[in-house]
Amino acid sequence: MEHLKRSERLVLMTRILTNTPNIVHNFAEFCEMFDVAKSTVSEDVDLIAGAMKLSGKGVVETISGAAGGVMYRSCYSKDEAARILSEIAKILSMPGRLLPGGFLYTSDVVSDPKYTRQMGEIIAQKYYDNLPDFVLTMETKGIPFALMIAQALNVPLVIARRDSRAYEGSAVKINYLSGSRNEKLDTMAISRRAVKAGQKALIADDFAKGGGTLKGMREMMTECQIEVIGVEVMIKTLEPKEKLCENVSALLTLKGTDRLSNSCDVAVDAAYLPA
Amino acid sequence: MEHLKRSERLVLMTRILTNTPNIVHNFAEFCEMFDVAKSTVSEDVDLIAGAMKLSGKGVVETISGAAGGVMYRSCYSKDEAARILSEIAKILSMPGRLLPGGFLYTSDVVSDPKYTRQMGEIIAQKYYDNLPDFVLTMETKGIPFALMIAQALNVPLVIARRDSRAYEGSAVKINYLSGSRNEKLDTMAISRRAVKAGQKALIADDFAKGGGTLKGMREMMTECQIEVIGVEVMIKTLEPKEKLCENVSALLTLKGTDRLSNSCDVAVDAAYLPA
Repeated sequence: MEHLKRSERLVLMTRILTNTPNIVHNFAEFCEMFDVAKSTVSEDVDLIAGAMKLSGKGVVETISGAAGGVMYRSCYSKDEAARILSEIAKILSMPGRLLPGGFLYTSDVVSDPKYTRQMGEIIAQKYYDNLPDFVLTMETKGIPFALMIAQALNVPLVIARRDSRAYEGSAVKINYLSGSRNEKLDTMAISRRAVKAGQKALIADDFAKGGGTLKGMREMMTECQIEVIGVEVMIKTLEPKEKLCENVSALLTLKGTDRLSNSCDVAVDAAYLPA
Repeated sequence: MEHLKRSERLVLMTRILTNTPNIVHNFAEFCEMFDVAKSTVSEDVDLIAGAMKLSGKGVVETISGAAGGVMYRSCYSKDEAARILSEIAKILSMPGRLLPGGFLYTSDVVSDPKYTRQMGEIIAQKYYDNLPDFVLTMETKGIPFALMIAQALNVPLVIARRDSRAYEGSAVKINYLSGSRNEKLDTMAISRRAVKAGQKALIADDFAKGGGTLKGMREMMTECQIEVIGVEVMIKTLEPKEKLCENVSALLTLKGTDRLSNSCDVAVDAAYLPA
């Protein structure tokens, strides 16, 4: 594409940068694409970075050096994150969502890219300065949420299974205790090819009550000699306060249930909101 | 945000539009955000639409009328789609990916947002003129791929399970025959709350050999009185040519395996490429 106007280049560069969060684009890539000098690209990048800064919704960073370039990361203010999470909490608190057995119906929200993308981005920004090598989740319901965190961080997602599968090759398989009184013996497997000793993992799931599954994922990482840099869930229950897994951070808290209206009381976890 | 320069507005509007594919933004939203007249927003939108058109990588459409506004959709030319899919085919054809039992290891590629996002967008553009109400997949491996299609279309994802779960409420459960000779009886369940009679579904999965799971999803949709508007998979095997499910469209074809190098021959499915 030759001889574009600055305004046109700005639009196209913004599209590329925001579509590829956390990926460094070399200036040469844009020089070639638009047939312009590096100084022109540099001015364009400054303009984009300035506009993003004004909006407070994204950061465009320039990295100097041979491997340098420019990179976009989404960014949420405390107010913006609170607004989005409150909206989701409100949806989850609507009457009729309480299921027999005391379960909260969340499947529509946790699989809707509209909601999971924003939640994934809100979580991702906690890890910009300490990037994991991958995001780990356990099948099934937490996958969309975990994938959106992985997308915002530009790292792969690794899915632990309830059992090993022939199409995933050799597996690491562990037994772990779950249930609120550590009374259930479960198994978890991940493909040996998916991870390497010495890596860093971010654990993510949609829901934590006892925390057994999260604890299982922690144990799996220990087994694989991988450091866990965080444990993030979309919703945790208020009770039991002590989860089997340590340091579980949640966007939302399920505070209680009301059998009359078949609803749950879900609120934004104040401890969560970005500074 | 008041008194931004045009170039700054263009950057911020492009970020919003490309971050929310297939969502209509009313002009008033931008008028209020930037404190400018509708005619100014209209000029900005024309500029963005023009730049996108020049790049060939996105379409910005203006919808007139009361519910009108502006909307972004990603767009891949035949060459661009071929380039991306060839790169993925090359990765999947690398030595060492053939597992005992004749399986191809794909988990790293199908769970990497970098690849699944592009594949999801390539598929989505086939359905811009006939939007599904949701994308349906069967747990587990196809979820990231299906979610990215859903994201590009701005529709929810519905996940079918191997069994019903208490936390998904009442379920529709079916039995279906799978296996290459229709010899296996499997079950599939979806939450009754997730779908409604009269809707349109797009079925998506990561892999099709016999096509039994896809057929099961078709039968599930029939059971729920939902029309299937397409069946999309990432990779299908060349043999058997006749799948149990009709009209399966695949981005890639697994043409054969080589036990010497433990590799598979994966190629772009020529029938797939957009016009």
